[in-house]
Amino acid sequence: MNETIDTILSHRSIRKFKDEKLTKEQIHTIVRSAQQASTSSFVMAYTIIGITDDSKKQALMEISGQPYVKDNGHLFVFCGDLHRAHQLRNKADKEQQELITETIESTEQFIVTVIDGALAAQNAVLAAESMGLGACFLGSLRNDINKVSDLLQLPNHVVPLFGVAVGYPDHQPELKPRLPIETVYHENSYMEDEEQEELINEFDLTLKKYYDSRSTNTRIDTWTEQMIRKYSNPQRMDVSAFVKSKGLNKR
Amino acid sequence: MNETIDTILSHRSIRKFKDEKLTKEQIHTIVRSAQQASTSSFVMAYTIIGITDDSKKQALMEISGQPYVKDNGHLFVFCGDLHRAHQLRNKADKEQQELITETIESTEQFIVTVIDGALAAQNAVLAAESMGLGACFLGSLRNDINKVSDLLQLPNHVVPLFGVAVGYPDHQPELKPRLPIETVYHENSYMEDEEQEELINEFDLTLKKYYDSRSTNTRIDTWTEQMIRKYSNPQRMDVSAFVKSKGLNKR
Repeated sequence: MNETIDTILSHRSIRKFKDEKLTKEQIHTIVRSAQQASTSSFVMAYTIIGITDDSKKQALMEISGQPYVKDNGHLFVFCGDLHRAHQLRNKADKEQQELITETIESTEQFIVTVIDGALAAQNAVLAAESMGLGACFLGSLRNDINKVSDLLQLPNHVVPLFGVAVGYPDHQPELKPRLPIETVYHENSYMEDEEQEELINEFDLTLKKYYDSRSTNTRIDTWTEQMIRKYSNPQRMDVSAFVKSKGLNKR
Repeated sequence: MNETIDTILSHRSIRKFKDEKLTKEQIHTIVRSAQQASTSSFVMAYTIIGITDDSKKQALMEISGQPYVKDNGHLFVFCGDLHRAHQLRNKADKEQQELITETIESTEQFIVTVIDGALAAQNAVLAAESMGLGACFLGSLRNDINKVSDLLQLPNHVVPLFGVAVGYPDHQPELKPRLPIETVYHENSYMEDEEQEELINEFDLTLKKYYDSRSTNTRIDTWTEQMIRKYSNPQRMDVSAFVKSKGLNKR
């Protein structure tokens, strides 16, 4: 074990921050850490928007429904970005220009931009955590992805992926359990359904115990119940049309 | 600065490994590190397949075109996985079942599964690097995503995202530069195109210098040239149909 693995294994999402802003240096270190992540074909297909404007923070908080979108040490919004690459079209030959747009609008390149953004974000979160800060991913910004895009004035071929709120932790949640390792790590081929079902049943019991023992919450359902509740309630079904309207994931 | 940030900032992709396998313990630590990453709504929407079967490694190497897909300390394939959640449909009420499929097949949930897989992978890579190992992402497995899926016997609602080759480094590449930090980090709203163009021109010069000074390679083009070359050559355009055929990113 080492310090990095300790940091990784100690991760919990922090949803309550002290009233203290990050310094410019901290923000710089976090963004530089994000940048050093691997990137597909050197495209660096993401942009990070730091939000310091209070009215924008307020608007994002309302979209998310979470107070820590406003009350934190710093708020980052990670965006998938193929606009930067698409702009280079202006320097390409006539016959290349159509092909560039076609490629950039593919699902393959949409996958690239989501992966690039997520790898960068995980580096950012770990860098922050290693400095004694806490962080929380905010997929909830996709509750109104159109509005987030307008607020940040994102051009074509750029889509907001998620926010990351960072700051000094003002609570210390228990470590949340994960699915048994055998459930997510298979060898050579995908596991049989029956075997997976048994592991999930086991995890349902683990999770019940965790909620029972947790000091701050009286939730008592299983993973199975949570997932059924979540997935039988279609949400953010407008994301698909939005992404296409921005010229991504179109073909 | 601390050990974790040192590890993050020292990242370079390793493409040549010593002939030494990872131990079971190392693999366990890497996968546990992957698991501790944040996950959207606790879905844990990914599965990692470790490849130990030589014929499968050979086949994956041929798809990728890269020798280090075969010659490494261990090969992981990260998959976006909503099959696990979809299976719970069997335990849901009749009226919920249709809704569950509808939700899982949305672009929103496709984004969730790609993000979850990438966050987990970045933790895995950093854990490996912190132990003195090196790693390389293999988007090249998407060169024939259908075949990878067949090889690993992936069920519906699971798609291969990328491989990660890990092992003891047998070379030490120079650190590759990144776009100027101002290019990828904006404040409150997306940067003007003209400003971005200037930064990219600056980076084109930086990169030329990097290639000039690099001992192992005589490449001399700019980022702009690389990107134009890449994007004017449509690749992996079958990924879109494949993903839909697996019941993801459909609506």
